[in-house]
Amino acid sequence: RLMTYGKGDVFAYRTFMPPLTGLQQIPESTFEGKSNTVFGVNASIEIGGKAFLPSFAEGDNSLVVATDSMKNFIQRHLADYEGSTLEGFLDYTARRFLEKYTHVDTIKMTGVEVPFESAVGIKNGESSSSDLVFKRSRNEQARSTVSLERINEKMEVTGHSSEITDLQLVKVKGNSFVGFIRDEYTTLPEDGNRPLFIYLNIGWTYENQQDSLGTNPLNYVAAEQVKDIASTVFDEIESPSIQYLIYLIGCRVLERFPQLKEVTFQSQNRTWDVVVEDIPGSEGKVYTEPRLPYGFQRFSVTKDDLNTSAKKAVTSDTYK
Amino acid sequence: RLMTYGKGDVFAYRTFMPPLTGLQQIPESTFEGKSNTVFGVNASIEIGGKAFLPSFAEGDNSLVVATDSMKNFIQRHLADYEGSTLEGFLDYTARRFLEKYTHVDTIKMTGVEVPFESAVGIKNGESSSSDLVFKRSRNEQARSTVSLERINEKMEVTGHSSEITDLQLVKVKGNSFVGFIRDEYTTLPEDGNRPLFIYLNIGWTYENQQDSLGTNPLNYVAAEQVKDIASTVFDEIESPSIQYLIYLIGCRVLERFPQLKEVTFQSQNRTWDVVVEDIPGSEGKVYTEPRLPYGFQRFSVTKDDLNTSAKKAVTSDTYK
Amino acid sequence: RLMTYGKGDVFAYRTFMPPLTGLQQIPESTFEGKSNTVFGVNASIEIGGKAFLPSFAEGDNSLVVATDSMKNFIQRHLADYEGSTLEGFLDYTARRFLEKYTHVDTIKMTGVEVPFESAVGIKNGESSSSDLVFKRSRNEQARSTVSLERINEKMEVTGHSSEITDLQLVKVKGNSFVGFIRDEYTTLPEDGNRPLFIYLNIGWTYENQQDSLGTNPLNYVAAEQVKDIASTVFDEIESPSIQYLIYLIGCRVLERFPQLKEVTFQSQNRTWDVVVEDIPGSEGKVYTEPRLPYGFQRFSVTKDDLNTSAKKAVTSDTYK
Amino acid sequence: RLMTYGKGDVFAYRTFMPPLTGLQQIPESTFEGKSNTVFGVNASIEIGGKAFLPSFAEGDNSLVVATDSMKNFIQRHLADYEGSTLEGFLDYTARRFLEKYTHVDTIKMTGVEVPFESAVGIKNGESSSSDLVFKRSRNEQARSTVSLERINEKMEVTGHSSEITDLQLVKVKGNSFVGFIRDEYTTLPEDGNRPLFIYLNIGWTYENQQDSLGTNPLNYVAAEQVKDIASTVFDEIESPSIQYLIYLIGCRVLERFPQLKEVTFQSQNRTWDVVVEDIPGSEGKVYTEPRLPYGFQRFSVTKDDLNTSAKKAVTSDTYK
Repeated sequence: RLMTYGKGDVFAYRTFMPPLTGLQQIPESTFEGKSNTVFGVNASIEIGGKAFLPSFAEGDNSLVVATDSMKNFIQRHLADYEGSTLEGFLDYTARRFLEKYTHVDTIKMTGVEVPFESAVGIKNGESSSSDLVFKRSRNEQARSTVSLERINEKMEVTGHSSEITDLQLVKVKGNSFVGFIRDEYTTLPEDGNRPLFIYLNIGWTYENQQDSLGTNPLNYVAAEQVKDIASTVFDEIESPSIQYLIYLIGCRVLERFPQLKEVTFQSQNRTWDVVVEDIPGSEGKVYTEPRLPYGFQRFSVTKDDLNTSAKKAVTSDTYK
Repeated sequence: RLMTYGKGDVFAYRTFMPPLTGLQQIPESTFEGKSNTVFGVNASIEIGGKAFLPSFAEGDNSLVVATDSMKNFIQRHLADYEGSTLEGFLDYTARRFLEKYTHVDTIKMTGVEVPFESAVGIKNGESSSSDLVFKRSRNEQARSTVSLERINEKMEVTGHSSEITDLQLVKVKGNSFVGFIRDEYTTLPEDGNRPLFIYLNIGWTYENQQDSLGTNPLNYVAAEQVKDIASTVFDEIESPSIQYLIYLIGCRVLERFPQLKEVTFQSQNRTWDVVVEDIPGSEGKVYTEPRLPYGFQRFSVTKDDLNTSAKKAVTSDTYK
Repeated sequence: RLMTYGKGDVFAYRTFMPPLTGLQQIPESTFEGKSNTVFGVNASIEIGGKAFLPSFAEGDNSLVVATDSMKNFIQRHLADYEGSTLEGFLDYTARRFLEKYTHVDTIKMTGVEVPFESAVGIKNGESSSSDLVFKRSRNEQARSTVSLERINEKMEVTGHSSEITDLQLVKVKGNSFVGFIRDEYTTLPEDGNRPLFIYLNIGWTYENQQDSLGTNPLNYVAAEQVKDIASTVFDEIESPSIQYLIYLIGCRVLERFPQLKEVTFQSQNRTWDVVVEDIPGSEGKVYTEPRLPYGFQRFSVTKDDLNTSAKKAVTSDTYK
Repeated sequence: RLMTYGKGDVFAYRTFMPPLTGLQQIPESTFEGKSNTVFGVNASIEIGGKAFLPSFAEGDNSLVVATDSMKNFIQRHLADYEGSTLEGFLDYTARRFLEKYTHVDTIKMTGVEVPFESAVGIKNGESSSSDLVFKRSRNEQARSTVSLERINEKMEVTGHSSEITDLQLVKVKGNSFVGFIRDEYTTLPEDGNRPLFIYLNIGWTYENQQDSLGTNPLNYVAAEQVKDIASTVFDEIESPSIQYLIYLIGCRVLERFPQLKEVTFQSQNRTWDVVVEDIPGSEGKVYTEPRLPYGFQRFSVTKDDLNTSAKKAVTSDTYK
């Protein structure tokens, strides 16, 4: 039955963590790595096991690890972690936790990046990136999850994922939405050249979970790279729908990173409504925020798609 | 594979909807029904089916029901709905949608109540509840989901649930938390008499989904009744932990409503930190908001629990 | 020049504070007082004085009261406070602060109520209000401010206000909006019978600030009473606009409470858009959330208005 | 008396607006201008005048400009505006509004930038900034206000300001906070080398409001430049307090832009709490989110400060 407990919103920041370097380079991104001068994470931990039933059914706390202790455990293990990635930190901490508390059967750890961008400083009399001052960003962020289970005294990975979430992209022209079903419930006009404003969550899983940890950075896929692929594909194509756009993004990610198994999408349509169609002497228009209901999609792409749709999605020719 | 799309945040308000009356009465609640003078819902719809693959893989929109049309469909069916409950409205609309669009294989509809409380007016020169003025509440709200699938030309219910969400309750004394594991990660002291502040989501499913629709109100369980059971059980017991408290609440709900199959909980601990222990001449104390990490539980109770724990949870004696 | 500093979001909760009783009764409200079993406040403090210039201009902290100490000061004085009102607590704490730190020239304290409503419990086998369990409300809340200045060694009140904020009221029929200016920028149709959904902040000041403290409860105006006047007036009239509605509410508040000097309003129009006009056999309609831009008003009413508009606003006849 | 009304949250987006170029360059920033391919603003308008009293006191709407019409007015004037700045757009629209509606006495327009950052695209086979795809940012944003009043048939500027808001900066070491008052309310320890996390709103006004419009870009101060000055000064100094830091930032802004009259600050201290002091082999530490109360400052700097503190604040030497 459902029976777990844990701690959420465990914020932890580590300064001067080892940097992430040595990533595989791809045409769609110039991202090379992270200094990790500030590494921020909002972590949560959720544990389960038959041993916890008496705490529910009888109010017997003798096998309860207090959630306050879980918080301490996470924060101290961020100090001990010797790697450079969110995925690695979560995996490391989850395994140590299962080792420490042998009556725990399952553990799920989730981490949401608290992103920091470089801020401007001064070096040798010139404006440059500061080594010490950073800007906290509230834009898109990485997110990762790992689930482990103790099976026959061994820890098995029962789930893992990496994600870039809350990405908000607009393409100001060159998108259409036509040819859909028209009936008595249809009031939306067709549109052959609209701006398209999308919210995107893009997730990916590896064929081999160990590759997600960043120990071998050549096999690691950075959230920044996936983000850059998404905006590049958006830039390249004239999209007839969000559905088709995310399909192509998924294929491109899998093409670039064969170590991945699946790419999943949660997308939303937040396209503006037009209020002034014509501005004399300009191709510009004036738009306003859309009304609240929003369209959404949930979709996953696997390597099978790569084979069947190779011609459309693989636009490597562009890069020659 | 994962392949669905839909519309979220479809807000709809209906005035002068038929009232909800004729509920089964229970000792823990004086709730008798709802006027439904204002019925508010934030609905979402999510549909799936093999027919939608070309819209993703080829950008072919010819079988796409625009999400804007879905919004219209939902809002118009709120006008047509002849019943009195959130669950009934979702079920009605989902079934009509599958009937209308025969290439759709699955549908999931979710509704979150936008709650309105009666406001004060004047009647016959006396302060009383207004018949026309209502206060929009941002407190706990009902939530419901129904999932249908077209199987062999018939619509089957593949999931359903009712919920009360975002309930925030504090009991100012008489709660303890002692006897948990103490080790090198433990900094939390034991506490024999703390206030206990909890956030609660309580969900329930029926043995027979038809009972959830409210057509026969004697079999319908109102979210207000479940809420009242929760605060009553909290009031009655001296709780040694949230775990035990929600276990007892779950048992009580199942005892009162044998038409239910399972009760599930998502609870959070938001207990304040003490800052002034002693106020001369008073049993009061001063507390402050806790730091951000919060403990949580996820748990489900079934009728099996009712049998094994009957003595503890069934406190019907109290009511004699 | 502008030069202040302070502490915000100082949350403090006190249990078993002395109850508020003995209020003046009015026809529009049955509110009689508060148990104060849980009193919650989100306080802020802001201080100023010439003595603080070196902390800014020279980085000299020697006269700086750390904002962390301010937090402690506030929380400990909530324990010491012997009264029963938000206004009284703020005034008490502000005066003690100026006494303690004689180089501080000005102080402004603001408190936002964290409201708790009674929850259901069991008494003598019957469902009743619990004495110990409360529901945290996220609806409308009281808010109060007091500003003091040290002038010639004496503390003078330079400002004070009490408020009820975030009240959200809808009246489902009987409101109109017609007769406004129509020109090339007008697209809104006239409407003779619309629902009217308003957000309201209502503030009031006393002729004599001492009356706001609640020491003499007969002169104290509770936020709950003002709220009940607002919904009662809304219930009584067929309003041609929010402007007129708030004018009448202001007049009524001043009529009931002659100890007040001024009533101020911040109101917003959040009226729904109609989507289904006719439901056969019902006077109901279906509406949806409005688009985001919202209309607002800011307005104050004084006793002069009471004289000139006595006939319209004073509807005491209703109560005979 | 207080008597205004208006429209808030008027979102408007214009594509392909004329770019902003030709700014004065400063050592602390490489910012050169904006493409304005997407210009987004959340505008509000608030008007007043004696003519509106009957709409409140008598429910007479005959002189009421519907707030819906105001929304239309703003959106259409964004299409007509021929300049390149937020300040210019607000000033232009406010003046046209007063011209159109001669019974309006006062107008205040506020605009909050909806910021868009360039996203990655592909050009000539290389990863580059896209011309058409942009990322909506939820980080710091520009904000501007202009207030006009009709006095003797002429429009006078009664207030104006430009701002950068919601900037969140952390410096990971080299900050101290020592030497403050210690007494019975003090529990905060002194700290000689802490990270310092600040939230900043920085506002500025011009000697001559016309310079704020951007018509002569050499006299215009871009929010991006002020932001870069702030992080550069933060990077340069070892700060003993936020107070001193903002003082120096203010002086630097006024030194670089003599066309400004005053710089104002709202700052908050959001510094993390340390949880692991020592990480072997690293100068790093682990921190966690602070508890909720936060310290804040409000302060303004004028040219008088520039004279008295020239030596400290003017660090131009750094740039030689």
